[in-house]
Amino acid sequence: MTKSQDVAVRVAVIGAGTVGATVVAQILEHGDDLRRRIGRPLEVVGVAVRDTQRARPELGDVHITADPLELAADPRSDVVVELMGGVDKAYEVVRAALVRGASVVTANKALIAARGIELHALAHANGADLYYEGAVAGAIPLLRPLRESFVGDHITKVLGIVNGTTNYILTQMTEFGLDYALALQQAQQLGYAEADPTADVSGQDSAAKAVILARLAFHTDVDIAEVSVEGIESVSIDDIEAAQAMGFVIKLLAVAEIADASGVVVRVHPTLVPQSHPLASVRGPFNAVFVSATAAGDVMFYGRGAGGAPTASAVVGDLVTAARNIATGSRGFAVEPYAGLSTLPLGCARTRYYVNLHVADEPGVLATVATVFAANGVSISVVRQDGAGEEASLVVRTHEASDAALAHTVSQLRDLPAVRSVVGVMRVEGEQ
Amino acid sequence: MTKSQDVAVRVAVIGAGTVGATVVAQILEHGDDLRRRIGRPLEVVGVAVRDTQRARPELGDVHITADPLELAADPRSDVVVELMGGVDKAYEVVRAALVRGASVVTANKALIAARGIELHALAHANGADLYYEGAVAGAIPLLRPLRESFVGDHITKVLGIVNGTTNYILTQMTEFGLDYALALQQAQQLGYAEADPTADVSGQDSAAKAVILARLAFHTDVDIAEVSVEGIESVSIDDIEAAQAMGFVIKLLAVAEIADASGVVVRVHPTLVPQSHPLASVRGPFNAVFVSATAAGDVMFYGRGAGGAPTASAVVGDLVTAARNIATGSRGFAVEPYAGLSTLPLGCARTRYYVNLHVADEPGVLATVATVFAANGVSISVVRQDGAGEEASLVVRTHEASDAALAHTVSQLRDLPAVRSVVGVMRVEGEQ
Repeated sequence: MTKSQDVAVRVAVIGAGTVGATVVAQILEHGDDLRRRIGRPLEVVGVAVRDTQRARPELGDVHITADPLELAADPRSDVVVELMGGVDKAYEVVRAALVRGASVVTANKALIAARGIELHALAHANGADLYYEGAVAGAIPLLRPLRESFVGDHITKVLGIVNGTTNYILTQMTEFGLDYALALQQAQQLGYAEADPTADVSGQDSAAKAVILARLAFHTDVDIAEVSVEGIESVSIDDIEAAQAMGFVIKLLAVAEIADASGVVVRVHPTLVPQSHPLASVRGPFNAVFVSATAAGDVMFYGRGAGGAPTASAVVGDLVTAARNIATGSRGFAVEPYAGLSTLPLGCARTRYYVNLHVADEPGVLATVATVFAANGVSISVVRQDGAGEEASLVVRTHEASDAALAHTVSQLRDLPAVRSVVGVMRVEGEQ
Repeated sequence: MTKSQDVAVRVAVIGAGTVGATVVAQILEHGDDLRRRIGRPLEVVGVAVRDTQRARPELGDVHITADPLELAADPRSDVVVELMGGVDKAYEVVRAALVRGASVVTANKALIAARGIELHALAHANGADLYYEGAVAGAIPLLRPLRESFVGDHITKVLGIVNGTTNYILTQMTEFGLDYALALQQAQQLGYAEADPTADVSGQDSAAKAVILARLAFHTDVDIAEVSVEGIESVSIDDIEAAQAMGFVIKLLAVAEIADASGVVVRVHPTLVPQSHPLASVRGPFNAVFVSATAAGDVMFYGRGAGGAPTASAVVGDLVTAARNIATGSRGFAVEPYAGLSTLPLGCARTRYYVNLHVADEPGVLATVATVFAANGVSISVVRQDGAGEEASLVVRTHEASDAALAHTVSQLRDLPAVRSVVGVMRVEGEQ
């Protein structure tokens, strides 16, 4: 293959929805600039679309095909950009590109969460690159720093708001007192939530992203089935108001952390975050991810989490990197699960709880409750007791303990005769 | 040169203060991990120190020398890590390494601000890399994303808190009502400010970082002499309280922006930022940088801005990248001022002003003042008028206008007989 600086790096684009069409348009419009950054021109040699009948003036006179697999396997491209979505068919497409040594850029979080380690191994074996910055947190440059910048440091925890839909809903509930159903409806009207919002509100979307973050941060494989996931469907206005009264906001966090020398815990759940914490001010559809590293301390990345233009920006950034590696005969950092840590159950995580109890308003209840905490080795940080007629409300925040001990404490509290009901239980993150 | 995976990438470290000693210790301690990430082992072949007599058990049995220039020029290293500080001598050292094709990693912001373009050209001509992530915002991965992630996008503005000392002082003034002198004294006691704090409080340190950010964001050279700089020495408690009353905080911002098709404006000054803006919650010694790009939207990077461990983390990250490039025979993205934009004077920036006037408490004053704004083509956004005996206070916030028009407005206001004094003038950023 000639490597003169006039020979184009050839790109095949699979999928021409919003992101795909924007990517092609940017390549066509900013050709000179991209050429300067890559050292060789970029040439779009083909675009695979669902419907070849539709007119697509934005794609210029680029070759259009309805067969994504054939385009990916065609040796006349050096980089394949996969933007078709889904897992199984997209896997075949990405695989077809990698086995022939073509580099792949994708924004497909479901695919990478499900088969990323295998695809990285395939890329490595065939001398190709695999990049997917757009798969997590839109255009926020997050995966590249995780892969490349912290290489001399030791990451201990990744904590983030990685789903804009749920963050929008929680923000509306917090700031305007909307209940969950109405906030969801509003998010759907504005296009922040899909008609079937399950993947977002159940936490599954965040879980896929947490898997990708955990892998890059800890050099270890994580199966999405091993992620503990709780969504926002049961978060009530009462929870949010109780949180506010204590100086907290409720956020759906994806958390991946080193739990002990041999294992990591990856979890997604509604979480109390102190109002003074930088994650608390991440509003609406924005995303933010906190990375804690031994030497670097806490570093946060913040930006628009989704949308066609930000995702296209991330894809073109990856494409330039992959093309540049081809132009210079080099390759990006490999992603390998060499640390080989196991994924531990949620009970192994060290966390803090907030527990809101309705108790009988009689002497000695606090002592009884405190005894249960103590018996489980859980240290109480703050208690607030408010009488309200026959019942009293007892709000407890704990110090750090294993999630297993905290969960066991709550289960024993439920059985106490003096405890009428456990009104709210939530984990707390971001307290010093 | 053999390229077997057992041949070490050889590193010379110039300067063994806190950062240098930490870097060497990390290389010695995490050898296996770094080897895996680089593909070849790292070997420290020499450390240049000021005082060779001092015992340095943390450096192990590494060769110690008092001659930095000789060590940098010695062909027995592949990467030179410059951590001696200063400009002239450090320049000689970095130059000596680059001319013989050795890659350079540094955290020296003054050197890179003063001679970065020249050093990048030298690196490019000799097939070497030049990295300096630690020079701006400590361990926050900021320069790498600017160099690599936004390559497919178009950055229009960079806005940041890049000096921890001044941010600590302003935070103490805001949260505890300390006056400037006392807050500075406290910062000095805690080690956040130096005995001579001039470089920090005058804004010069932020200006050097703004130059580096502007170059990477806009592919253009900027001379630090062309940066408009105002420090925090004259920020008073009154300014801070007036800001709070309007829902703003005062931050020392470094701003670099495209001002028109041919030019950029780079400026450092105390700025009003809305309390709801993510930069407002960046407290104490933390740093944060906002990057606005056409497709990506606003992206923020946040973290600890300085300190030995974070800077060492950034340096080791750069070192791994440079070593990996050597191991794979590749090279990082070049930094070239190919866009060739000019640096325009402050007057060309489009901004918003806050103006606090003491005026005679008599009818018609607001009309007179409003006429001056209108005559300069400046549109008023909010006015608040409070009577206070013979004088009234008139606080005006404007819509966006050229800084020249705004400055001219203020100068004309000073000459109005009805205006007793201009109590405060400050630029506003981050309003939608």
